[in-house]
Amino acid sequence: MASKLHFFVLLSVLYASIQVSMAGDPDILTDFVPPVLFGPPGGNYFTFSGFRALVGAPFPTTFKILKASMIEFPALEGQSVSYAVLQFPNGTVNPPHTHPRASELLFVLMGSLQVGFVDTTNKLFTQKLQQGDIFVFPKGLVHFQFNSDAKNPALALSAFGSANPGTVKVPSAVFNSTIDDQVLALSFKTDVATIQKIKSGLK
Amino acid sequence: MASKLHFFVLLSVLYASIQVSMAGDPDILTDFVPPVLFGPPGGNYFTFSGFRALVGAPFPTTFKILKASMIEFPALEGQSVSYAVLQFPNGTVNPPHTHPRASELLFVLMGSLQVGFVDTTNKLFTQKLQQGDIFVFPKGLVHFQFNSDAKNPALALSAFGSANPGTVKVPSAVFNSTIDDQVLALSFKTDVATIQKIKSGLK
Amino acid sequence: MASKLHFFVLLSVLYASIQVSMAGDPDILTDFVPPVLFGPPGGNYFTFSGFRALVGAPFPTTFKILKASMIEFPALEGQSVSYAVLQFPNGTVNPPHTHPRASELLFVLMGSLQVGFVDTTNKLFTQKLQQGDIFVFPKGLVHFQFNSDAKNPALALSAFGSANPGTVKVPSAVFNSTIDDQVLALSFKTDVATIQKIKSGLK
Amino acid sequence: MASKLHFFVLLSVLYASIQVSMAGDPDILTDFVPPVLFGPPGGNYFTFSGFRALVGAPFPTTFKILKASMIEFPALEGQSVSYAVLQFPNGTVNPPHTHPRASELLFVLMGSLQVGFVDTTNKLFTQKLQQGDIFVFPKGLVHFQFNSDAKNPALALSAFGSANPGTVKVPSAVFNSTIDDQVLALSFKTDVATIQKIKSGLK
Amino acid sequence: MASKLHFFVLLSVLYASIQVSMAGDPDILTDFVPPVLFGPPGGNYFTFSGFRALVGAPFPTTFKILKASMIEFPALEGQSVSYAVLQFPNGTVNPPHTHPRASELLFVLMGSLQVGFVDTTNKLFTQKLQQGDIFVFPKGLVHFQFNSDAKNPALALSAFGSANPGTVKVPSAVFNSTIDDQVLALSFKTDVATIQKIKSGLK
Amino acid sequence: MASKLHFFVLLSVLYASIQVSMAGDPDILTDFVPPVLFGPPGGNYFTFSGFRALVGAPFPTTFKILKASMIEFPALEGQSVSYAVLQFPNGTVNPPHTHPRASELLFVLMGSLQVGFVDTTNKLFTQKLQQGDIFVFPKGLVHFQFNSDAKNPALALSAFGSANPGTVKVPSAVFNSTIDDQVLALSFKTDVATIQKIKSGLK
Repeated sequence: MASKLHFFVLLSVLYASIQVSMAGDPDILTDFVPPVLFGPPGGNYFTFSGFRALVGAPFPTTFKILKASMIEFPALEGQSVSYAVLQFPNGTVNPPHTHPRASELLFVLMGSLQVGFVDTTNKLFTQKLQQGDIFVFPKGLVHFQFNSDAKNPALALSAFGSANPGTVKVPSAVFNSTIDDQVLALSFKTDVATIQKIKSGLK
Repeated sequence: MASKLHFFVLLSVLYASIQVSMAGDPDILTDFVPPVLFGPPGGNYFTFSGFRALVGAPFPTTFKILKASMIEFPALEGQSVSYAVLQFPNGTVNPPHTHPRASELLFVLMGSLQVGFVDTTNKLFTQKLQQGDIFVFPKGLVHFQFNSDAKNPALALSAFGSANPGTVKVPSAVFNSTIDDQVLALSFKTDVATIQKIKSGLK
Repeated sequence: MASKLHFFVLLSVLYASIQVSMAGDPDILTDFVPPVLFGPPGGNYFTFSGFRALVGAPFPTTFKILKASMIEFPALEGQSVSYAVLQFPNGTVNPPHTHPRASELLFVLMGSLQVGFVDTTNKLFTQKLQQGDIFVFPKGLVHFQFNSDAKNPALALSAFGSANPGTVKVPSAVFNSTIDDQVLALSFKTDVATIQKIKSGLK
Repeated sequence: MASKLHFFVLLSVLYASIQVSMAGDPDILTDFVPPVLFGPPGGNYFTFSGFRALVGAPFPTTFKILKASMIEFPALEGQSVSYAVLQFPNGTVNPPHTHPRASELLFVLMGSLQVGFVDTTNKLFTQKLQQGDIFVFPKGLVHFQFNSDAKNPALALSAFGSANPGTVKVPSAVFNSTIDDQVLALSFKTDVATIQKIKSGLK
Repeated sequence: MASKLHFFVLLSVLYASIQVSMAGDPDILTDFVPPVLFGPPGGNYFTFSGFRALVGAPFPTTFKILKASMIEFPALEGQSVSYAVLQFPNGTVNPPHTHPRASELLFVLMGSLQVGFVDTTNKLFTQKLQQGDIFVFPKGLVHFQFNSDAKNPALALSAFGSANPGTVKVPSAVFNSTIDDQVLALSFKTDVATIQKIKSGLK
Repeated sequence: MASKLHFFVLLSVLYASIQVSMAGDPDILTDFVPPVLFGPPGGNYFTFSGFRALVGAPFPTTFKILKASMIEFPALEGQSVSYAVLQFPNGTVNPPHTHPRASELLFVLMGSLQVGFVDTTNKLFTQKLQQGDIFVFPKGLVHFQFNSDAKNPALALSAFGSANPGTVKVPSAVFNSTIDDQVLALSFKTDVATIQKIKSGLK
C-alpha cells in the first residue's frame, strides 16, 4: 500500500513538473530552466544532437520533417526559439498547415521551393524560392511548400519564434480527426460522398 | 520655404513610422487609445451600437456573423477583448476555422449547438451544447459549430481574448484562394478533379 | 508517522500544482492546460454549464453576478478570456469597482443601463446604454453600472480579456476591510463619525 | 502640385497612425526609443534632474508626490520602470489608491509609515514600516500609506514596474468626478446627504 | 529505504516548487504568489527588512551592492520590480556589466557619479550625475558607474523593471569563468600573456 | 490656408508620434506589418534574398556574419524571429558577446565549433559541437564560438527568438567605445598600460 502511494506521489510530482514546464513562458525569470529531477546541468544539456543523423544520410523518398522543439530538446523551454529540418524529394509537398504559437522563417539550403501563405482576408502570397532564399510565414496563417522540380530534391531549415510552435495540419485536422461527414459536407459545400472520398485517401 | 516644410513634414512622417515599427508595449501605457484625428473622446467613443440591429430583427436564413472587434469598434485597441454574434438557422454550420490571435469563449444564448475543436495531436474534442452552456476553443486550433436541430435556430455570443482575433476560414483559405490544384491534390492525397469539384462549390 | 509524511507530501504536491496553475501565463506553450491529477480531458472539460441555471430562472431581487472565470472553469487557464452575467433588478447598481487584470466588455442583453468609468486624470466617461449596446471599461479603471429604470430589470453579459480578471469592489475594499477610521477620515477629508456611518451601512 | 503633396502627406499620416495602432512589441525592438523630432540623443537624454529640487529643500507642509515617469522623463519609454518620491509631514496620509499598470515597491528613506493593501478577497495586509524597510503593493490593488507619527516627517521612494503606472485615487475618482449622488448612495448603502457631505469636503 | 524515498520525493517537491516559482512570469493570474509550504501570508510577507542594516552603519571601504530581488524577497515574484543599494567609497567603480532581464533606474542619493552605457552600435552615452539625479540604463546594455571624487563617498539606489534582473559582470564573466586563454587572446586581439595578467588580477 | 494645413499636418504628426509611444501590443494585431509608404505587398515582400550571395561563394578569410533581421528584412517586424549566418575560417573566433533581446539557437552546418556561455552565477557551460549539432545560448548571457580546427572552416546558422536581437560585442563595447582608461583599469583590476595595450589592438 505504502509503495503504491509512493508511486502515486512520485507520478504526481513528475506530472506537476511536466505541467509546469508546459504552462511555462517566453520571459522566464532565470537564465534557463534546469532539468527537474537531476542535478545541475552541464554543457551537454544545452546541446541537441538529433540532427546529426541527417549528415551523410540518404535523402528520404517521401516528404519528411525532423524537429528540434522543446519536446525533443528540453533546454529550449523559456528561450522562445526552435528548429525543424524539411526534406522534399522531387514533386512532394508540405500540405497546408498553421503554427498556432509562432511565425516560421524558412531558409532554402538546397534546391528550390514554391511557397505560399493565405492571410485572414483570404489573399494568397506566393513565391518561387531558390537556394539561399528566406521566406517568412506569419504566425497562425495557412501555408504550404511545394518542390515542383521533377528531378531534384529540396532541403530547407525552418526557425520558429517559440520553443513549441505546434502544427495544425489542415488535411489531417479537418479530414482525419473524426469530424462528422455532414458537418464537413456542409462546410465545404459539397456532398458526403466527396468528403468520404477525401477522408479515405488520407487514412 | 513651403517645400522645405513639406520635406520636413515628410521626414517626420517617415521618422514617426520608423519609430512606430520599433516602439511598443503589450499592455498599452495609457488608460486607452484615443481617436487619432479628432478631439478628446466622450462616453460614446467607448460605446458600440452595431449590435442594436439584432434586437427584434428576423432571424437570418443562412449562417451569419456580426463582429465587434477593433475594426468595427476602435476603442477596443489595447483592451485585448472583443465580441461576435453567431446566428445559426436550423441545420447550418460555421465551417472549420481558426483564430490566429485569440481563444474563443462561446455562450449559447438560444437553441443547441454541436461544437468541436482539434488539437495539434489531431484529437477531436466535441460536445453537444444546450442553452446556457459555454465552451472554450483554444487559441489557433481548428474548430466548428453546427446547429443539427432540424427545426430551431441557435444563437450564440462569442468573446475573444484579443481586440482583433482574426479568422482563417479553412474552406476559403485552402480552396478559394488560388492555391494551385496540383499542390492541393498532393496535399489531400486525391485527384485534381476532386479538388476542382470542391473549388467550384465554394466560389 | 510515515502516513503523516505521506499526507504532507501529497498536500505539498497539490499546493505546488495549484500555485503553478496560478502563477501561469497568457501565452502557454501548449494547446491548453490539462487537469493536474486526472487523465486526459474530453470535450466536457472545455464545457462550462454553470450558467444553465439562469435559463428560465426567476429574476433575482438584488443585483447579482455569476462568473465563469478560471476559478469556476479551469479549462480557461492560459486562454486569456472569461465571462460574467450581471442581473440588475430595477433601481439597482453595481457599485464602483476595478478589475486589476483585464478590461471589461459589457453587452446589454435586456433593459437599459447607465454606465461610466473614471480615467486616471479623474475624468468621468458616462453613457446610457440600451438593449444591444456594448461598452468597454478599460483595464484597472473605476467603473459602475446602474439600472435607473423604475420598473424593468436589466441583464448584461460581460467578457474579460483575462481568465481571472479579479475585482476590487471600492465600497468593501475601502470601508469594509478594517482600514483604520483615522486613515479613512484623513483620506476622504471628513470626520471619523461619517466614516463610521458608512462602515456600519456596509457591514 | 502642392495640394497633391499635402494630400499625400496627410494620407501618410493617416496610414502611419493606422499602422501604429496595429504594430507593436512588449519589450521594444531597439536599445531605447529616441526623441521624435530632434537629432540623436546624448547622455543627458537618459538623465532626469527633476528630483534635484528636493536636495536641501524644506519639507512640505502637506503630503506631496514628485514623479519621474515616462511623462516627465521620456527616455523611460519601453524601459518598464519609473520612480516617485513621497513626502509625508507628521500625521498625513496618502489616500487609498490603485496603480492600474504596475506594482509599487516602497522604500522608507526617513521616518516611519503605516502601510496596507487590500486584496481581491477583501483582506487587508498591513504593516508598520521603519526607516530602511521595503514594502510591495501588488499591481492594481487598493493601498495607502500613513505617517502616524505626531512629530516627525517621513520620506519614501517608490519604484514601479512600468514607465507609466497611472494612479486611480479612490476619493477623487469616486467622489470628485461627477458620478451621480444616487449611484453613490446606493453603492455605499448610505443616504444622499452623506454622499454630498463627503463630496463637498473633497472639492 | 522507504525514508530515503520519502526524502527524495520531498526534495523533488521542493525542487519542483522552486523551479516553478522561477519559471514564473510578469503577468501572474492572481493578486500575488503566496509562499509554497506555509500558511496564508500576513503583512510581513510583503515587507523586506534587509536594508535596515544600512541605517546608521559605517560606509564600506570597497564598492558594495545590497539587493532586494525575488531571491532575497520572495513576495516580489510576479510583481516585476526590485531594488539594489549601491555604495561607492571615493574612487571606486561598479565595473562594466549588463542586466539580462531589466532596465536599471539609478537615483543618486548622496555624492556624485560618472555613469555610462554603450548601445548596440557601440556608442557610449555618459553623464556626470549629482545628488538627486536619475539615470536610466536600457535593458541588456553594458554600463558602469564611477565615483571619481577623491574624498567623498557616493550612495545610489537602483530600481529594476524585473523581480530578478540578473547581472552579467563583464570582468568576471569573461576573464574569471575559465574561458580558454587562446579564445580570449583571439577575441581581444592580444597575446595570451596579457590575458593571463588580467585573469590573475581578477582571481 | 496652406499654412493652416501645414500646421494641422504637423500637429497630426506630433499627435501620431505621441500616440505611437503610448500604444502597442506584444504580438501584433494584424497578420503582418505592411510597408509604410508603398502599396499592398506581394509575395516578394516576405522573401529575403540577401543570403543567395553565399551560394557558391569562396569562404571568407576572416570570421564573418551575415544577418537577416528586421533591419535587412522589414517583413520580420512583429514576427519574433530572425537569422544570421556565421562563417569561421580555421582558427577563428566569434568573440564574447550578448544578445539583449533574444536567445540564439546555433546549428553547425559544416565543420566543428567549440562553444560556451557563462550564466549569471559566473559558471561556464561549454561544448565541442560537430556537424549537425545544435546549441542554445540563453537570452542576454555572454557567449562565444571558436573554430579550433587548424585546417578546416566551419559554417553555422543561428536563429533568434526576436526580429531584432541586437548584439553587444564585449571587446568593442568595453575597450573600443571611449570608456575612460581609469574606469577600465579599476574594473579589470589592472594598470592603465594594460588597458591601453588592449585598446590599441582593437582599434
